[in-house]
Amino acid sequence: MFRKCMIPIISSVSLGIGALVGAKLERCKQSLNVEGKSLLAFPSVLAVKLDDVTTPVQEAGGRPSSVIPVNRSQEIMRFGFPGFDQVRTFDNYVMSYDRRNRNAHWVFEHLTPQNLAYDESVHRGNSEFREDTSIHQYFRSTNYDYRRTRYDRGHLAAAQNHRMSQNALDQTFFLSNTSPQVGEGFNRGLWNDLEKYVRAVARNNKNVYVCTGPMYLPRLESDGKVYVKYEVIGANQVAVPTHFFKVIVIENLNGQFELQSYLLPNQMLPVDTPLKKYFCHLDSIERSAGLLLFDKIPRNMFRKINGVKQ
Amino acid sequence: MFRKCMIPIISSVSLGIGALVGAKLERCKQSLNVEGKSLLAFPSVLAVKLDDVTTPVQEAGGRPSSVIPVNRSQEIMRFGFPGFDQVRTFDNYVMSYDRRNRNAHWVFEHLTPQNLAYDESVHRGNSEFREDTSIHQYFRSTNYDYRRTRYDRGHLAAAQNHRMSQNALDQTFFLSNTSPQVGEGFNRGLWNDLEKYVRAVARNNKNVYVCTGPMYLPRLESDGKVYVKYEVIGANQVAVPTHFFKVIVIENLNGQFELQSYLLPNQMLPVDTPLKKYFCHLDSIERSAGLLLFDKIPRNMFRKINGVKQ
Repeated sequence: MFRKCMIPIISSVSLGIGALVGAKLERCKQSLNVEGKSLLAFPSVLAVKLDDVTTPVQEAGGRPSSVIPVNRSQEIMRFGFPGFDQVRTFDNYVMSYDRRNRNAHWVFEHLTPQNLAYDESVHRGNSEFREDTSIHQYFRSTNYDYRRTRYDRGHLAAAQNHRMSQNALDQTFFLSNTSPQVGEGFNRGLWNDLEKYVRAVARNNKNVYVCTGPMYLPRLESDGKVYVKYEVIGANQVAVPTHFFKVIVIENLNGQFELQSYLLPNQMLPVDTPLKKYFCHLDSIERSAGLLLFDKIPRNMFRKINGVKQ
Repeated sequence: MFRKCMIPIISSVSLGIGALVGAKLERCKQSLNVEGKSLLAFPSVLAVKLDDVTTPVQEAGGRPSSVIPVNRSQEIMRFGFPGFDQVRTFDNYVMSYDRRNRNAHWVFEHLTPQNLAYDESVHRGNSEFREDTSIHQYFRSTNYDYRRTRYDRGHLAAAQNHRMSQNALDQTFFLSNTSPQVGEGFNRGLWNDLEKYVRAVARNNKNVYVCTGPMYLPRLESDGKVYVKYEVIGANQVAVPTHFFKVIVIENLNGQFELQSYLLPNQMLPVDTPLKKYFCHLDSIERSAGLLLFDKIPRNMFRKINGVKQ
């Protein structure tokens, strides 16, 4: 049942496919079966009916599986499901994984003053970045892919949002939840500022729903044509997103809703730039990402969109 | 419930996201609901149990929906399901759609001497390329996207494989089943030769299973880094794949299996090139495409792989 992977010789094509399989990896049925648990089963799709579903928690790294009440997923995804590819649920966030780019498609979080409370026994120092073995090894990023690159392993579901338990925090350190991010001025700069801002908002409101993901945006080049271009790193050719989006829906203490949608380029950004400079129309993010975000909220329910009263 | 799409101004980012939404499109809940039917519901995922499922046929273009027995899907996908994103079933083929790139992820066909028989009342001239309205308009390619480009609307599930009924043929003309292909020397050249070859094989064997899809392969550039780069066309920024794969599993009249996996660059290729020049190891296609292909057949069941006796 096992066979070694060979490096193909495509004489007519001088592309990098060979590099992709530089590491000799075996086809691992066991891993595949683990991955098989990773999609939720939905009776119908865009009308997400989670009521009858019990969602197995994906536990990688050899930890035992457990089952969380599906109403946590239901809570997190209260206002719609962005897409349905390779969906996985963790204790406190939900993810869709993009096997081609070895990044998440999106991660979804639900923050409240209560679940942002620190458990003092929880330490970030106890968490380590690790491969997500629930993803087939053909499509999994590894710590090694990031070595000798200029990129951080940037969290999508921010670690600091999940300090309710060590396990919840640990689950944000799966490499399926990280994307190659420029470190200085981005992951350790404005992107971090945005994450802090979102937590501050969540501490002062009833509910904050957060959808975060990578983007691969096209650019007009000098030949007059438009191209998508992005770097890939490591033996697994992990895509380096050109941008990241973060879309938040805030429900305040009076039950009123506000939407903020951000798009930041994955590059060193000037410090102290007002975050609102990176507001981007939600439709544009949706079209470019291939996702529908918060589509279960009628847009006229938003009292404010990107800072503008409606 | 409806709002107009605005063109975002991202002053700090000179990328093409604005062009994406050049056309003023409205968020169309109706279309969204249609799309909502487009995913199959599976009780579990990689162990595909279709027995209990009845699959709605996706009918775009205002045609009435009908229901086909799910065993047709089961027949087509007998040896595994490549992925689970935006899956749609037609009368005679199955597709997964990539909303970000506005191309299919893959299409899957099952050819036999019987279902390749021509119905003489079926005419290609009666079929027209048309938008697949079952896909949300944010993510749908249109005929207009192809205008004034050098690309053909290249079928993935080949039209000539589906002449059993006018409806089956028509369904291959949904633009969700087409990718921008170089015309001369590719779509009208070697790619067409490959399609003809596959039909010839199918006419002389018991079953042929065909999975076809676009690829976006990385390339080593002069700065020593590896990049994925591909053009996008039209207002909907339809991705132009760098390559296409076609993987076929042949079951001969004695019940023996053979696998052939091809990878062709989307460019003008020399005529009369032997197709076997484009054999590519299946693993490499799977890794690059983010798909698992025919994973329900143990590899040691293949008597021949890419022309080599096992």
